[in-house]
Amino acid sequence: MTPEAALIDLQNIHDEGSLLVVGECGRHIPFPVRRMFAVTAVSPGERRGHHAHRQLNQMLICMSGSIDVVTDDGHERRTYRLDHLSRGLHVPPGIWAEQTYEGPGTVLLVLCDQPYDEADYIREYDQFLAYRGVTGKPT
Amino acid sequence: MTPEAALIDLQNIHDEGSLLVVGECGRHIPFPVRRMFAVTAVSPGERRGHHAHRQLNQMLICMSGSIDVVTDDGHERRTYRLDHLSRGLHVPPGIWAEQTYEGPGTVLLVLCDQPYDEADYIREYDQFLAYRGVTGKPT
Repeated sequence: MTPEAALIDLQNIHDEGSLLVVGECGRHIPFPVRRMFAVTAVSPGERRGHHAHRQLNQMLICMSGSIDVVTDDGHERRTYRLDHLSRGLHVPPGIWAEQTYEGPGTVLLVLCDQPYDEADYIREYDQFLAYRGVTGKPT
Repeated sequence: MTPEAALIDLQNIHDEGSLLVVGECGRHIPFPVRRMFAVTAVSPGERRGHHAHRQLNQMLICMSGSIDVVTDDGHERRTYRLDHLSRGLHVPPGIWAEQTYEGPGTVLLVLCDQPYDEADYIREYDQFLAYRGVTGKPT
């Protein structure tokens, strides 16, 4: 059984109006970070992602603006709204994910536990369902 | 001799107007990441930081807005403007740093190679100069 995606509250420290948000590996971030990437300047409403990973763990944190993330385990689709950096979404391996960016100034940070590896991607949805052992489409 | 602070270009991948910025540990980020923190909602013009670390490596990336970072090795002060997520500032141990935020929507991401440890901080400037073996004030 593959783990599900999960929202994770980071540590929030308020100090005279400002906000410090902390994510520690092994505590808030359930893996060691070996790579980060950030995505910005995406056209509003454009849906990105459309893939799953075989091994890669990812933590998605919306640093500015707002992003809707759809996760799909082959049986069920869930939608998460990420609109503040105080909360991240852990997307474990074996979960199909798609992201919709609300404005061009939106910035998505993704922390990863592996270097980039094209062979780790599942980019075709039918192939994803086969990988998950699902024969029908999700509802 | 302690290493100096250094600007580091992250990998930039342009795709139909959008921008993907990649930082890999051991390649762009010169240390393994064990903790991240982010700071936002700081009053414009307010100067933060005012400390050095004995052991901690940090990579500062401005995810939104604009931040001026002053670094100080006890002999020389340098000012770096971080106004885009495509470039980070590596602040190694033994460097005093201060940050000025330009607007309340500015977001600073800091990647670190150690968990939080209050004993690692040098918060008094005189103590920092003594730690660096400097007797006079910097120019």
